[in-house]
Amino acid sequence: MDSVAVLGYAACAVTALTFLPQVVKTWKEKSAKNVSLLMFIIAFINEIMWIAYGVLRHDNVIIITNVIMITLCSAMIGLKLKYRNV
Amino acid sequence: MDSVAVLGYAACAVTALTFLPQVVKTWKEKSAKNVSLLMFIIAFINEIMWIAYGVLRHDNVIIITNVIMITLCSAMIGLKLKYRNV
Repeated sequence: MDSVAVLGYAACAVTALTFLPQVVKTWKEKSAKNVSLLMFIIAFINEIMWIAYGVLRHDNVIIITNVIMITLCSAMIGLKLKYRNV
Repeated sequence: MDSVAVLGYAACAVTALTFLPQVVKTWKEKSAKNVSLLMFIIAFINEIMWIAYGVLRHDNVIIITNVIMITLCSAMIGLKLKYRNV
């Protein structure tokens, strides 16, 4: 594997975990008033697009990255709806 | 261009604008207490990784997508620091 590919995989790994700090913060603080629901709805739709792209391109890295992202994104949408006015 | 490539470009376009609703919401509400700074710092570092990857791969779509993202991400970090306790 060349070093550019390693950078790509590392970038995917970081991308996959982008939403985790927001999920943890909201989970702990039980407050999400200032968090944009629209951002996570757009991200959710976007991850479906990326998973479809990954499946059509037979690219497991794209599929795995976006399955992790859509899981965290779904958790965040749930937390936002629960704590939207808090 | 095949239809899978079109899906990829469309997915990139949506990805590029993911942070926009959060920037607009925070700009309007002047409040970012519940927004995770760590999420945007991780995203910032991640976008530098993706821009480097795009440059090394001579992939303009990746470069443009992540230049837009890092611009919005920087704006959000600035807003978060300004309104972090509000």
